[in-house]
Amino acid sequence: MALGMYEIISKKRDGRDLDKEEISFVISGYARGEIPDYQVAAWLMAIYIRGLSEREMADLTEVMLASGDRIPLDEVSGKKIDKHSTGGVGDKISFIVAPLVAACGLCVPMLSGRGLGHTGGTLDKLEAVPGMNVFLTLGQIRSVLADAGMVICGQTDNIVPADKKIYALRGATATVGCIPLIASSIMSKKLALGTDGIVLDVKAGNGAFMKDEQDALRLCRAMVAIGEKTGRLTLGIISSMHQPLGRAVGNSLEIIESIEALKGKGPEDVMQVTYALGFCMLRAAGLKTSEAQAGEMFREAIASGRALDVFRRFIAAQGGDPRICDDYSLLPAASVRLEFSAPTSGSSRPSIRFRSVWQP
Amino acid sequence: MALGMYEIISKKRDGRDLDKEEISFVISGYARGEIPDYQVAAWLMAIYIRGLSEREMADLTEVMLASGDRIPLDEVSGKKIDKHSTGGVGDKISFIVAPLVAACGLCVPMLSGRGLGHTGGTLDKLEAVPGMNVFLTLGQIRSVLADAGMVICGQTDNIVPADKKIYALRGATATVGCIPLIASSIMSKKLALGTDGIVLDVKAGNGAFMKDEQDALRLCRAMVAIGEKTGRLTLGIISSMHQPLGRAVGNSLEIIESIEALKGKGPEDVMQVTYALGFCMLRAAGLKTSEAQAGEMFREAIASGRALDVFRRFIAAQGGDPRICDDYSLLPAASVRLEFSAPTSGSSRPSIRFRSVWQP
Repeated sequence: MALGMYEIISKKRDGRDLDKEEISFVISGYARGEIPDYQVAAWLMAIYIRGLSEREMADLTEVMLASGDRIPLDEVSGKKIDKHSTGGVGDKISFIVAPLVAACGLCVPMLSGRGLGHTGGTLDKLEAVPGMNVFLTLGQIRSVLADAGMVICGQTDNIVPADKKIYALRGATATVGCIPLIASSIMSKKLALGTDGIVLDVKAGNGAFMKDEQDALRLCRAMVAIGEKTGRLTLGIISSMHQPLGRAVGNSLEIIESIEALKGKGPEDVMQVTYALGFCMLRAAGLKTSEAQAGEMFREAIASGRALDVFRRFIAAQGGDPRICDDYSLLPAASVRLEFSAPTSGSSRPSIRFRSVWQP
Repeated sequence: MALGMYEIISKKRDGRDLDKEEISFVISGYARGEIPDYQVAAWLMAIYIRGLSEREMADLTEVMLASGDRIPLDEVSGKKIDKHSTGGVGDKISFIVAPLVAACGLCVPMLSGRGLGHTGGTLDKLEAVPGMNVFLTLGQIRSVLADAGMVICGQTDNIVPADKKIYALRGATATVGCIPLIASSIMSKKLALGTDGIVLDVKAGNGAFMKDEQDALRLCRAMVAIGEKTGRLTLGIISSMHQPLGRAVGNSLEIIESIEALKGKGPEDVMQVTYALGFCMLRAAGLKTSEAQAGEMFREAIASGRALDVFRRFIAAQGGDPRICDDYSLLPAASVRLEFSAPTSGSSRPSIRFRSVWQP
């Protein structure tokens, strides 16, 4: 090929597919500061309008991944399954499903982020726990996984640095809401973590980034296709986010609601999403359970206290105070307090709807 | 409206029409350095792919025009008609048609440019004439027009400065070959000159910027539409540029071929294009002549020596040595010498084809 930036922009402008070498030329050149932002801006707009094929998305994902560090987890035993949500109001599923499937024998490493827009960040919520350390070294990540079977921490600055630079440019050039770019951005960060499988929870609805269920489905399919083409087992569900999940929104309140769920007192909608994702995680780990069998396993893990026990060990392993599980007064009072009454029978709260997207 | 740059980019990205205030926001903000080039680059790519309506093109043209100076010619008497060619190899028509129609009573002010790409610039060719001054003040332009009935000079730096900045960005972002942007760029500079009408010669073919006749027609129609919507009478023709025009390419050689044409010895293809454009210029000036009558007027203007006389006065008025018309050895020897033999009978040289585009 040996095309320059002008020709690469022209090619995508005219709706033609780029090869991996061309995509790499743009991403690595931009990351090194050798290609000016106005050229990348024009290229991103051409991608926004013309789209990317699944092969191009996979290539873009791998090229972005190659721009930074990876977190190898080969030394960690067990099937390592990551769960990723595109984010929604009141989404505390990570705190419930991770200990639940860890109690069923899986290893659950999760890299999470801060709040984005109107949705609270998983890290912000975790930091409500006194002493909790959410930024860990690779050695600490391995150690927490060995202690608790799960870890939830922030990503280091050098995970996919090219994505940070491109994301900032997209934010200024009206190219944020582009499904191929969103899918590649998310998946490049997911692939940086050395897991055996990835389970995606793509939210659709008023409270989510994707308002439209068809868009959510397109995004989910794009990410599953990237997983397939890059050799990482990836499953996804679309879950509705027309109402906040559960009854609590706010950092401390969501931690409390999660602990209540692990004690068997979770709101119905939260448990529906938790069980659906947990089932996907078991399947991603290669377990041949049916959805009904998975439900039985989860109910047993909660009833026996094993799931809550995993959560306690996880809190302690990351420096937090596990006594919060029994004494909620140890958590800071919420500065913003939003609580939702449980839906009464016959209420207009829509039931959670799922669509599954599996790799072929 | 009161939309910001992000929303304006989004609107065009989604294929919606921008209003004049929005277009002005971008162009004036960019010209003042208040909008960063990466945002304008994304906007230009969105325009490239989504296009502009005729109304948007007219608005863009007027907004760019407003970024700089105008050259008012109200004090100059007579019908002032400009002729603009999109440029082609061996195109020396300006030097022939301007004295020809000036000899028929029109006033012909032309702002020309340097060579672009492989096509020689009108100003470069004129500077082959010893002493010729191609950069004139407004006072000088009026004085040359009064003396000779025609003027050909360069445009000042402050004619449509916004276009210069945007053209440079288009050159780096693969958004040059965009018909609405080309049309607005050309017309903004044409409108800066206070003429009564504009005649366009859009070249199509291997030797032209527009390789394809359909593209040339689209460009011509776009410019005529802009003329109509901005209240300036505009006519255009498409002329083929599959072969160089005439038999000479090179600054001195093209001046000599032009003088020969004014002496009645012009190559057939050159005279075809000259007469077609001259006819359009007469029509733009409001003369109700037929094409046959115009041809008679031109032949008479050449046979009587009046056309060559206009050319001599034009050369002298701009400081050049009019004796070159009689002694070609006063012109510098061409550093690059390209001559084409006259087509023999039955040769493959295609005849010049025309399509006219008139305002409704």
